[in-house]
Amino acid sequence: MPKVGIVMGSDSDLKVMSKAAKQLESFGIDYEMTIISAHREPDVFFEWARAAEGKGIKVIIAGAGMAAHLPGMCAALFPMPVIGVPLSGKNLDGMDALYSIVQMPPGIPVATVAIDGGMNAAILAAKILAVSEPELLEKLKGYTAEMKAAVQSKAAKLDEIGYEAYLAQA
Amino acid sequence: MPKVGIVMGSDSDLKVMSKAAKQLESFGIDYEMTIISAHREPDVFFEWARAAEGKGIKVIIAGAGMAAHLPGMCAALFPMPVIGVPLSGKNLDGMDALYSIVQMPPGIPVATVAIDGGMNAAILAAKILAVSEPELLEKLKGYTAEMKAAVQSKAAKLDEIGYEAYLAQA
Amino acid sequence: MPKVGIVMGSDSDLKVMSKAAKQLESFGIDYEMTIISAHREPDVFFEWARAAEGKGIKVIIAGAGMAAHLPGMCAALFPMPVIGVPLSGKNLDGMDALYSIVQMPPGIPVATVAIDGGMNAAILAAKILAVSEPELLEKLKGYTAEMKAAVQSKAAKLDEIGYEAYLAQA
Amino acid sequence: MPKVGIVMGSDSDLKVMSKAAKQLESFGIDYEMTIISAHREPDVFFEWARAAEGKGIKVIIAGAGMAAHLPGMCAALFPMPVIGVPLSGKNLDGMDALYSIVQMPPGIPVATVAIDGGMNAAILAAKILAVSEPELLEKLKGYTAEMKAAVQSKAAKLDEIGYEAYLAQA
Amino acid sequence: MPKVGIVMGSDSDLKVMSKAAKQLESFGIDYEMTIISAHREPDVFFEWARAAEGKGIKVIIAGAGMAAHLPGMCAALFPMPVIGVPLSGKNLDGMDALYSIVQMPPGIPVATVAIDGGMNAAILAAKILAVSEPELLEKLKGYTAEMKAAVQSKAAKLDEIGYEAYLAQA
Amino acid sequence: MPKVGIVMGSDSDLKVMSKAAKQLESFGIDYEMTIISAHREPDVFFEWARAAEGKGIKVIIAGAGMAAHLPGMCAALFPMPVIGVPLSGKNLDGMDALYSIVQMPPGIPVATVAIDGGMNAAILAAKILAVSEPELLEKLKGYTAEMKAAVQSKAAKLDEIGYEAYLAQA
Amino acid sequence: MPKVGIVMGSDSDLKVMSKAAKQLESFGIDYEMTIISAHREPDVFFEWARAAEGKGIKVIIAGAGMAAHLPGMCAALFPMPVIGVPLSGKNLDGMDALYSIVQMPPGIPVATVAIDGGMNAAILAAKILAVSEPELLEKLKGYTAEMKAAVQSKAAKLDEIGYEAYLAQA
Amino acid sequence: MPKVGIVMGSDSDLKVMSKAAKQLESFGIDYEMTIISAHREPDVFFEWARAAEGKGIKVIIAGAGMAAHLPGMCAALFPMPVIGVPLSGKNLDGMDALYSIVQMPPGIPVATVAIDGGMNAAILAAKILAVSEPELLEKLKGYTAEMKAAVQSKAAKLDEIGYEAYLAQA
Repeated sequence: MPKVGIVMGSDSDLKVMSKAAKQLESFGIDYEMTIISAHREPDVFFEWARAAEGKGIKVIIAGAGMAAHLPGMCAALFPMPVIGVPLSGKNLDGMDALYSIVQMPPGIPVATVAIDGGMNAAILAAKILAVSEPELLEKLKGYTAEMKAAVQSKAAKLDEIGYEAYLAQA
Repeated sequence: MPKVGIVMGSDSDLKVMSKAAKQLESFGIDYEMTIISAHREPDVFFEWARAAEGKGIKVIIAGAGMAAHLPGMCAALFPMPVIGVPLSGKNLDGMDALYSIVQMPPGIPVATVAIDGGMNAAILAAKILAVSEPELLEKLKGYTAEMKAAVQSKAAKLDEIGYEAYLAQA
Repeated sequence: MPKVGIVMGSDSDLKVMSKAAKQLESFGIDYEMTIISAHREPDVFFEWARAAEGKGIKVIIAGAGMAAHLPGMCAALFPMPVIGVPLSGKNLDGMDALYSIVQMPPGIPVATVAIDGGMNAAILAAKILAVSEPELLEKLKGYTAEMKAAVQSKAAKLDEIGYEAYLAQA
Repeated sequence: MPKVGIVMGSDSDLKVMSKAAKQLESFGIDYEMTIISAHREPDVFFEWARAAEGKGIKVIIAGAGMAAHLPGMCAALFPMPVIGVPLSGKNLDGMDALYSIVQMPPGIPVATVAIDGGMNAAILAAKILAVSEPELLEKLKGYTAEMKAAVQSKAAKLDEIGYEAYLAQA
Repeated sequence: MPKVGIVMGSDSDLKVMSKAAKQLESFGIDYEMTIISAHREPDVFFEWARAAEGKGIKVIIAGAGMAAHLPGMCAALFPMPVIGVPLSGKNLDGMDALYSIVQMPPGIPVATVAIDGGMNAAILAAKILAVSEPELLEKLKGYTAEMKAAVQSKAAKLDEIGYEAYLAQA
Repeated sequence: MPKVGIVMGSDSDLKVMSKAAKQLESFGIDYEMTIISAHREPDVFFEWARAAEGKGIKVIIAGAGMAAHLPGMCAALFPMPVIGVPLSGKNLDGMDALYSIVQMPPGIPVATVAIDGGMNAAILAAKILAVSEPELLEKLKGYTAEMKAAVQSKAAKLDEIGYEAYLAQA
Repeated sequence: MPKVGIVMGSDSDLKVMSKAAKQLESFGIDYEMTIISAHREPDVFFEWARAAEGKGIKVIIAGAGMAAHLPGMCAALFPMPVIGVPLSGKNLDGMDALYSIVQMPPGIPVATVAIDGGMNAAILAAKILAVSEPELLEKLKGYTAEMKAAVQSKAAKLDEIGYEAYLAQA
Repeated sequence: MPKVGIVMGSDSDLKVMSKAAKQLESFGIDYEMTIISAHREPDVFFEWARAAEGKGIKVIIAGAGMAAHLPGMCAALFPMPVIGVPLSGKNLDGMDALYSIVQMPPGIPVATVAIDGGMNAAILAAKILAVSEPELLEKLKGYTAEMKAAVQSKAAKLDEIGYEAYLAQA
């Protein structure tokens, strides 16, 4: 049974949104991922968002670009947290999607992450689930420790070989 | 039977959106005006948008601020033109609403007017109806003539009394 | 006899604006398309905009970039709806054209669509004409159904082959 | 024992952030609220953020304006969800705070809500807790029903008395 | 015979644009000032812009707000310099007008000054005329000297009375 | 003797600024063009700007990117018109240069043209000189006629071969 | 002998810039403060900036609004650090001044602080001087301790009296 | 013993930040450079920032992109000057990093340089150190002279070979 539902409005969003899927997999969190357009098939969308709770979904991750309505409309229909991922497109660098997602009116919040922040959406979903899952909380602490180690190893390498060699290897 | 449906997400939008109503009245166009939130009552909204065509509505004017989803969701559900009015609020001068309304993805356009452009939304609705209503087209031409006369009369007054007196009277 | 007039200020706009033409063709709507610059040949432009009504044109689609005046000047001269398409150029991502088109003063609205939204301009034109053409309205409903089917088919494919295969095929 | 920690960098943020407190109270959620500056007392901040988990805090709500670092630094130190509230100040309408909060790098997400969205931060916190608290989930559904009723009552009033009387009463 | 034509689209622009008039008067430059809307009376506008050269006008100063087309359309019709003044309005701080005026396409420049820069438009007009009027050039040099003296006198006053007294007197 | 001085702060600006030179040549206007940095050699700059009038220069065209001070500092030192060309660079699309050039304080206007508008700067310079040079005014009218003919020829070609062939040839 | 020179382009900047003076006084740092316009009196400005080093000035604090050139021109003429304070004005919230100050080209940095950040400019100047003045460094550490105590005292008060009483007292 | 500490949050910042290192080397200033993430290893970061003074570091140069907290958190922990370098990334052209760095609240300034201004950060650091190091001040004056000579040599080349040859060689 999926705990997280990942939804995007178009398959052109899949490149960024699949990072959320990959990250959830690395935490061992069950998810479902689908393409549903709130604009092109509002009835399908409505049904999906309404049915999510019954399927066991606890968090929705919704990615959208331009006048991004998908995350906000999910938040109107789903009673638990909705995470919004603003997607950059051809123009405006995702600023349009950011405003369309984060500036939700009183009563219907969307937990917004950075533009193209698919991976962070998954980590936030994990943090939300970890509130009541001690084992997952431990995994998250392990992930944090790994991030720390990765930076420290880069710092050590820079210290060892100097910036010219470091840049040459990149 | 109303030909235009005016809808807004909150009664704080009424000050701007009532200008649309007033303008339609001046053209003798029947309309209905209501407050429906796509976020706070998505089912009521859905039903209203779906029912609009059956009630004889030919154009929807939808006003919304912040992450303004109302116009775009109307456009997803209503087969004829939807006019979007981005509303300025406390922050960002309505730029958030503008992007949320105008940047619609391929397939579901919203006819966007200026920020706080309630009056212009009504004129655009009239122009749309005038495509098939010669009498209304004549009224619009009359309106254009009145606008012209109003500017000319201001120019004449400025010419007559000079800018200092003109500003003093303002 | 053309029902829609497509006009652009420069042949560099043709790549986006031809999408409007293609979309109108798919709906079987007669149109004329031309290049006229309000800045470089204001008299030609004036004459064209004035003559449009007499030629049977019911909707004008005007695309322009930078300080985009073409749509607004059309709206000043043509009594029925004008749809404006802000075009992105080398700098500013079309934000200059968006403001120049959407922020029209009271009395002279332009129905603005997304930046580079040539296709949406045509769909909006069709929706406007569909107000009084039941057959076209049916075509638009068919188009909406096709869009829905296309998204559903993508969702089914993603479900079937998974995101890695999906991305690999793209 | 508090489940939510509300923190802000300055007492000038209290007007907006107290809305979060009020909203949590209405849901019956225990919280603690304090003023801690990540910039002016980094050691106090560090200790507070590190100690939060041990005190039973499950969600942190952090509000900040200008170059708002408080939410992001909380997210670096606290393993469960951090909700960021960008606060508008004298200049830039909170756009600086929005970017400083939402644009977090990979690995350390902040769940960002609208500019000055103190109330929404509390609702999002409640939604996060509701993932594992069925009783709270019911309260949230009740809250949603109240919002719906409130809009419907406004719509009924507008329908009854008309826009002029409605505006006159406002 | 006027050498400068000042034109604005609405009498709400007069407060800023009258500063241009006042400044021209102080230089002893003959001007005419009028209100003409390119959008509301395009034929009147056309005629005025076409006739300007014959009346002896050498420079046009055009002020407009929002989707400001007046300066650019003047530049399309008048062969000598057009100075554009972007006017701030209720929203967007005049950024819309600035883009609509300054971002003119190749071939039709508008000499753009600062937002609400009515006074500077007049000084620029004087500088343009001074290219061929040595007497006016001397006046401009005198004006520059006065500006310098004014700043120096303020500096002397600050030095003498200190900042607290200076601010108290302001 | 040069009538126009073209100045830029860096040789990386030459690609855009040489368009100004080319355009002046096409009008037969004598100019000098040089690279002077107000920041890197303020004394050289000062001397050049002060000496310009004596050399017969009537208009300065100054191009600069980023925190573009060159046009404004020219305007502080040269008594006749200064035209500013904001140059786009690696980041911000020239928006930084635009604000740094156009937003001049009262008393010291810069005639600002579009971002990267080197060619338009030259046309504006020609229009300024044409105020007192009837022959040049005739050339400018000829240039305008050529622009008109060029657009008309493109429109005729589009009409003849259709948009698909037109795009294929581009 | 002054160690810090505070300079601003207009007496309308004094309200913000006097905060820099007050802050320097509190640290016991000698300064001189004056009004000099790089645009209105470039020769006076040049002389002042050139003479600063000889007078013993080690740091210049320059405040300016709009197309703010004063800080950058100081940096071109003065060999030690220049701190720039972007000032907000009537329009654009100081974004124009921020870009005009911070986006300096390679070779001539300006140490930019927040919009209207007069006080912070003085603290930064003190930090610069403290590099070689151990006594001043101690004062700065004391200032930091005071800031910490002030926040802690506010936190204690909030904890004691609750947010309603706190807000009522504000 | 290093006088300058260069720190960045990720090795993807090294390309820009190494320019700071190179520039410091050219002035003969000892520095240390490392990668430390305030978000991914806050304790390591804290320790490093706290220890900097003891190691003899007088100035910190901190570069970061997106919601850039590193410079501001350095300024909270280190008593002498911190120079912030906003880094552009995939989206928003570094505007997010600029706001996150420059808009610091009262009491904790960051000396901000241009977006991607790694080299300028080093020059600013040198200017700060030069306040108390006459020899370094001389080097800076030499550097300024070299910049001047470089521009003059480019101007001479342009004058000699003309813009076409100059561009052809570039």
